[in-house]
Amino acid sequence: MASTQQTSPSHRDNILTGANVIVCGGGIRGAAAALALARKGAAVRLYERSPEFAEVGRGLQIGPHGWRILERWGVLPSLIERGFLPKRMRFRDALTDAPLLTMDFGESFQEHYGGRYMVIHRSDLLSCLIDAAVAAGAELHTGMTIVGAGNASHGVVVDLTRRCENDCNHEVTEQVKVDVLLAFDGIHSRFRAELSDDAPVPSSYVSYRGTVEAEGDPLEGLEDVVGHIGPHCHFIQYPLQGGQLLDQVGVFRSERYLAGHQNGEIPGDWGNPDELEDAYDHCSPQVSARIQHLWTNRWWQMADHAPLENWTDGNIIVLGDAAHATLQYLASGAVMAMEDADCVADFAADAARDSEELDWASVLEEVQAERLPRCSRIQTTSRFWGELWHLEGTGRIVRNALFRAAENDWYQYTDWLWRYDPSARAHIKEPSLGIVPRELREWRYRVVGGHSDARDPAGAES
Amino acid sequence: MASTQQTSPSHRDNILTGANVIVCGGGIRGAAAALALARKGAAVRLYERSPEFAEVGRGLQIGPHGWRILERWGVLPSLIERGFLPKRMRFRDALTDAPLLTMDFGESFQEHYGGRYMVIHRSDLLSCLIDAAVAAGAELHTGMTIVGAGNASHGVVVDLTRRCENDCNHEVTEQVKVDVLLAFDGIHSRFRAELSDDAPVPSSYVSYRGTVEAEGDPLEGLEDVVGHIGPHCHFIQYPLQGGQLLDQVGVFRSERYLAGHQNGEIPGDWGNPDELEDAYDHCSPQVSARIQHLWTNRWWQMADHAPLENWTDGNIIVLGDAAHATLQYLASGAVMAMEDADCVADFAADAARDSEELDWASVLEEVQAERLPRCSRIQTTSRFWGELWHLEGTGRIVRNALFRAAENDWYQYTDWLWRYDPSARAHIKEPSLGIVPRELREWRYRVVGGHSDARDPAGAES
Repeated sequence: MASTQQTSPSHRDNILTGANVIVCGGGIRGAAAALALARKGAAVRLYERSPEFAEVGRGLQIGPHGWRILERWGVLPSLIERGFLPKRMRFRDALTDAPLLTMDFGESFQEHYGGRYMVIHRSDLLSCLIDAAVAAGAELHTGMTIVGAGNASHGVVVDLTRRCENDCNHEVTEQVKVDVLLAFDGIHSRFRAELSDDAPVPSSYVSYRGTVEAEGDPLEGLEDVVGHIGPHCHFIQYPLQGGQLLDQVGVFRSERYLAGHQNGEIPGDWGNPDELEDAYDHCSPQVSARIQHLWTNRWWQMADHAPLENWTDGNIIVLGDAAHATLQYLASGAVMAMEDADCVADFAADAARDSEELDWASVLEEVQAERLPRCSRIQTTSRFWGELWHLEGTGRIVRNALFRAAENDWYQYTDWLWRYDPSARAHIKEPSLGIVPRELREWRYRVVGGHSDARDPAGAES
Repeated sequence: MASTQQTSPSHRDNILTGANVIVCGGGIRGAAAALALARKGAAVRLYERSPEFAEVGRGLQIGPHGWRILERWGVLPSLIERGFLPKRMRFRDALTDAPLLTMDFGESFQEHYGGRYMVIHRSDLLSCLIDAAVAAGAELHTGMTIVGAGNASHGVVVDLTRRCENDCNHEVTEQVKVDVLLAFDGIHSRFRAELSDDAPVPSSYVSYRGTVEAEGDPLEGLEDVVGHIGPHCHFIQYPLQGGQLLDQVGVFRSERYLAGHQNGEIPGDWGNPDELEDAYDHCSPQVSARIQHLWTNRWWQMADHAPLENWTDGNIIVLGDAAHATLQYLASGAVMAMEDADCVADFAADAARDSEELDWASVLEEVQAERLPRCSRIQTTSRFWGELWHLEGTGRIVRNALFRAAENDWYQYTDWLWRYDPSARAHIKEPSLGIVPRELREWRYRVVGGHSDARDPAGAES
């Protein structure tokens, strides 16, 4: 049913008129949810605790799985204007600069996936989504923190605090009752904490970012996403803002963190710019010469969640990073949240068409049934994909051979990721779609320092 | 020239009549050399220090590179009678028993390589070669040790000892002068020691063998070579003697040896049957249930040589394992010696056709120029191939994917090995044929415990 009721890109309907929705969290993920629901006529209030909407000005990749959703939401034109549509993705060996695999994003790709590949500043994406959400009628609030929420009869009671408008350091509390609460409150989600006592899973990898003006740079005119992958590190570069900027992303394993993890005391200086200084010494000049373009005032530890078995509590659901924070190797963290948002709006609209009164708890159960297997597979595969990029020695050579062998046949590895459409309810119909291949299921991700085989006695998780 | 003068399978010529050749070592490798030279009319004396010619009764694989030579030497019919011609080689994952790659040895293979794939008992191969060498006129002596040799004018003076025929514990010494000495005296070669002070390179892997009657065995009727490959171990099985026997080969990494190597004291019990007992615990029952068929009274440490830069001293040359002992992963140790033998006979015959007096030193230089790059490549690639088989974790999964991807396209990996013909003088014409791909050149084999990248500071050879 859902697929036959697909709306055209700019079409909005009012099927959710009368529904009251709160979105917790005003990053890209929450803004996407506010837009998706407001487009269907729901009364959406979004609360962000920071004083303003902001994302760090660094790039984000959006595959065709995200493109098709953004197209449905009608926001593509403004995104394309500020982003960049790379011609291809080129993987190269970080040690030798040798080409490994070129994924062409041309006509054949676009026809196969019904979408394009886009890169864009996070801040540009966020502001587009916020503008569109506001235009669709959503109410967006900053400086307001959701401090609690509980299911009440046919709805959710939400407690909020905000700073007094006179800036008198006084907190004002209010309580609202709505139909449903969508918690996009990130990897350290307070709502996830009510469903599970698990914590984010740290990794020994640290990420540095940096953008530079393209003009005069040796890479001026770059039209591709270029990813150098190598032992314990990778480095990704692509154009932004119509090619005026070049974005750099350097990710490497912190040997200090690893050593600290092993002897039980993680040093305060792990992953800092001193460590960055040496982290690419083993790489080709094409990589090591670029680290000067990384910002050294900020860096990020890579972390994710293990898949969670339940996202819902009545009319409350965790989504986005709160539900399924992932490592970045499949460039699908933000897109998964867009899929979540699209799925909630779509399933709610279908339910509204089917009955007088919308049973949000059932809608959220259905959303979870569709989304959880999908996101679990992305989380697990992202972990594997990272290990794959960072292989050394024999494994690296084999990986390189596999990448080269895939040159004309790589859709087999990306179809499951990029052809997915939540409205098709594919995982509800066939839950096994979320199951990774057996070898990957038995593969054990080790938080620190690699990987092992499930049945290998030496392979206990660290 | 050589290629147009190719002899037909059973044809012998007398082009080397008058040449006096000594072969040192009466294993498969020396016997092959005696046959190759005697077939050309040379007066060949082979000396083996053991009281009789013997090889342990276990199997040996011969690819089409060896098949074509054995065909030229006219010994195939008797070999086929005692060996087995497997229909295919099947690689499977040792942990899961999942199929990885099937290499079909059928018509298309035979046409492509101009030969077949054969497995045979070492003792059967040895006796065939010895019978053929004797039939071709070679003199074969056991119980005689070459204790020294030196270049003299246009020849080699060789000192020999033998036990007194009356078994009186008395050694009889004699000296002979010949034109050339071919030293096939194995990995601990006394002649290599005069060219280099290097020692065999030990590995932490140990090999067990065993044959069983096929009748009544669950694998009765096996027609293939089946290789299970897995983390730190592999297990190979194939039929022998027309399928009446099943041969098993188990190779695993000795954790005791590894630990001992690390703390500087290798224990006396490393690699023993106690260690075998646990070595396949992580494998599927299809593997672990078969180790009961391995003999436990004898086992072998895997070792090889690093490539040597010079094999010759005037009219003396080291060949076979004395020159290029290799790990067994490409099943080419014995075949390389057959190639050596064929090459010496062929190049000497060509030289004899070109001039009145045969300049053996030049012939041996030419043999080295052709053979050294070829054998170095096999030695290096065998080391890599072993590491590839024994990958764990992420590397293993990638390797499995690569093997599967190669299903219809694996000649690309075997042509360099199996299409080689020494008489084509390919490496003399193009020495770069012996150079492994750059990534493999930079890859560092670590004697104990894996591998690393050349440019990885953590990757010093152990």
